[in-house]
Amino acid sequence: MIDFPYLKDIVQTTESKILMVVADGLGGLPGGDTRQSELETASLPNINRLAQESACGLSTPVALGITPGSGPGHLALFGYDPLVHMIGRGALEAIGIGLELKPGDLAARGNFATTDAAGNLVDRRAGRISTEKAAPIAERLNKIEIPNLEVTVEHVLDYRFVVRLRGEKLSEDISETDPQITGVPPLRVEGFNKGALNTAKAINMFVSSAFKEIENEPIANSLLLRGWANAPSLPNFGTSLGLNPAAIASYPMYRGLASIVGMQVIKTGTDFSAQVETLKNNWSAHDYFFLHYKHTDSAGEDGDFGKKVTAIEALDSFLPELLSLEPDVLILAGDHSTPSIMSSHSWHPVPFLIHSKWTRGEGISRFNERELRYGSLGIFEAKHIMSLAMAHSGKLAKFGP
Amino acid sequence: MIDFPYLKDIVQTTESKILMVVADGLGGLPGGDTRQSELETASLPNINRLAQESACGLSTPVALGITPGSGPGHLALFGYDPLVHMIGRGALEAIGIGLELKPGDLAARGNFATTDAAGNLVDRRAGRISTEKAAPIAERLNKIEIPNLEVTVEHVLDYRFVVRLRGEKLSEDISETDPQITGVPPLRVEGFNKGALNTAKAINMFVSSAFKEIENEPIANSLLLRGWANAPSLPNFGTSLGLNPAAIASYPMYRGLASIVGMQVIKTGTDFSAQVETLKNNWSAHDYFFLHYKHTDSAGEDGDFGKKVTAIEALDSFLPELLSLEPDVLILAGDHSTPSIMSSHSWHPVPFLIHSKWTRGEGISRFNERELRYGSLGIFEAKHIMSLAMAHSGKLAKFGP
Repeated sequence: MIDFPYLKDIVQTTESKILMVVADGLGGLPGGDTRQSELETASLPNINRLAQESACGLSTPVALGITPGSGPGHLALFGYDPLVHMIGRGALEAIGIGLELKPGDLAARGNFATTDAAGNLVDRRAGRISTEKAAPIAERLNKIEIPNLEVTVEHVLDYRFVVRLRGEKLSEDISETDPQITGVPPLRVEGFNKGALNTAKAINMFVSSAFKEIENEPIANSLLLRGWANAPSLPNFGTSLGLNPAAIASYPMYRGLASIVGMQVIKTGTDFSAQVETLKNNWSAHDYFFLHYKHTDSAGEDGDFGKKVTAIEALDSFLPELLSLEPDVLILAGDHSTPSIMSSHSWHPVPFLIHSKWTRGEGISRFNERELRYGSLGIFEAKHIMSLAMAHSGKLAKFGP
Repeated sequence: MIDFPYLKDIVQTTESKILMVVADGLGGLPGGDTRQSELETASLPNINRLAQESACGLSTPVALGITPGSGPGHLALFGYDPLVHMIGRGALEAIGIGLELKPGDLAARGNFATTDAAGNLVDRRAGRISTEKAAPIAERLNKIEIPNLEVTVEHVLDYRFVVRLRGEKLSEDISETDPQITGVPPLRVEGFNKGALNTAKAINMFVSSAFKEIENEPIANSLLLRGWANAPSLPNFGTSLGLNPAAIASYPMYRGLASIVGMQVIKTGTDFSAQVETLKNNWSAHDYFFLHYKHTDSAGEDGDFGKKVTAIEALDSFLPELLSLEPDVLILAGDHSTPSIMSSHSWHPVPFLIHSKWTRGEGISRFNERELRYGSLGIFEAKHIMSLAMAHSGKLAKFGP
């Protein structure tokens, strides 16, 4: 939690409130003939006005050249060094579909697969079987009972599902069942050390039962498990920073990430205006808010430059409403860039501003990739953003005598 | 000392001289309606001319968002990582009043306090008793004798004093006597480990004697000790860098910090012109000078924007005299920002310039927070300043074949 070894000596609680708006995949690249990025193309009267009174810069989510997934991208924004605090694949998949993970839980990503009469794999993805066909099969796996082990199987999409195991001393130090090739049977789970042997044994029991349960399915007659991961154990965000934090996000992934660091996740609607309404209704109850805006990333992932421009402009239109709450510190950040011309996350540094009564502008007139590097924060690591938020809200006392 | 693992392989001694001018609390923020900081408001003909021929940037004293005290702020300027080399509170208090600390010494901050007839605390600060009344009582404590322990008690201000212990194997791993609440008696000192038991025992003897010595005082009839700290043990500045360094500072705190890293502290007067005179008189005898200018910080701490502007202008007027000494390297730096509108130290990055024959200007026309970030040094950690000083004075040889 915040990469500063003497953090607990200087954290202090104040009345002031921090609003962190995370526009997912905020950063972009010039598209088409205009040589202007999505942010440069968008009309952003409110955000640009705010930038003129803010401390500005570009944040590096993880490291130069590293493209982060949603997990490391958000952990950095929450003040966790994304290279120290990892969330394993299985755990993130569970979080992503809103499946609760308690300390000690073990999760894996599951694939339906197809085997021949001899039990050898012929298709590791069961012909990418549709959700319609796969979901009921996952439902049947969910009913399997194993002694001393609570098994939950939840369908994700198409041929994919998640397995969550709850029990005593479950270890992630076990092998995957996916041999990565066809023509051989799925592998048995092996424990990598003594403490993992019981976990491997219990899972092999589950897998055997699962094979039996679905062996007569025409396509999804087998399954593969990979990405074993225990529920991540992270220092509590609120306790570490003396904050009473709340998260307002529509998508399960971001609610899950907030919940894993211990934020209170508030129920909200599916569009951003509902989220803003939730923010207003809960404004008095918390001193830190993580408000997640998904549309910038979705449009970028779709490779739809115009749609991303529109998404940014829509966010701009909400700004006066956010400012009317009079947060002591307002942050506009992104977890990573998602340039429309790449249709994917990228490693490019991400536009950032922080506004408080201790920022008075620094000659930045527009909030975009090209101008923000001239801000007083320059190009900096995203894991320091929470230090800035804490400093600007008076929540960090002087370090050292 | 200088955060470079092969430092000793590349340090070389040359005739060239480094003058490091530290304007305490140099950085600021815009105040009032002008939206101009103290540096932007000040008329700085000499400093601005120098900036035009210098390498410029903004230094981060400790880390983003971290507000340093004088200790970490100066250690960084001297090339010590302020997160590795800590100075404890008691030690800094002793340093701050000019009490010499030798390796092995143990120091604490002391408070006079008031207890009732039963020995329970009724006022942990003895009614904030005046210096006039408290100083003679501290003087009496100073006369207490404990076997095998040299005890020095020196009054600081009002109800505060410093205790310095000199003896065999004194450990700072001991508890404070301040219970932090009234209605209970002062605590006994406990050792946190075996090696600290004798220290605790000796101090408890001193405290018992002290209680007896002052028990009939009307207000200051008790005392509390906290912030135990051994004299910091830092790699020697001069030896590590092949320098013969001198410090010229009016305030005991900065003389103490310089002395702790092993600089020769030269006797000087209380105003800056006396300091500059001292510098001139000793110019031939040293190859590194730390020249401390306090008024920028004092004015900032007072929240007096105009006074800080004047203090900066006064420093500017001394620049020709400093340049007439023809230092090979001239540095103008600050240990932290002290914006007048905050009346306190802050985390904001600090204006910086270094001038040598190897700097030829980089389009910076004015020395202030807004312009300097465009300098070739950008925003960088203050602990690297001494590497730059050494490089520009030809005192660092090539690294690697």
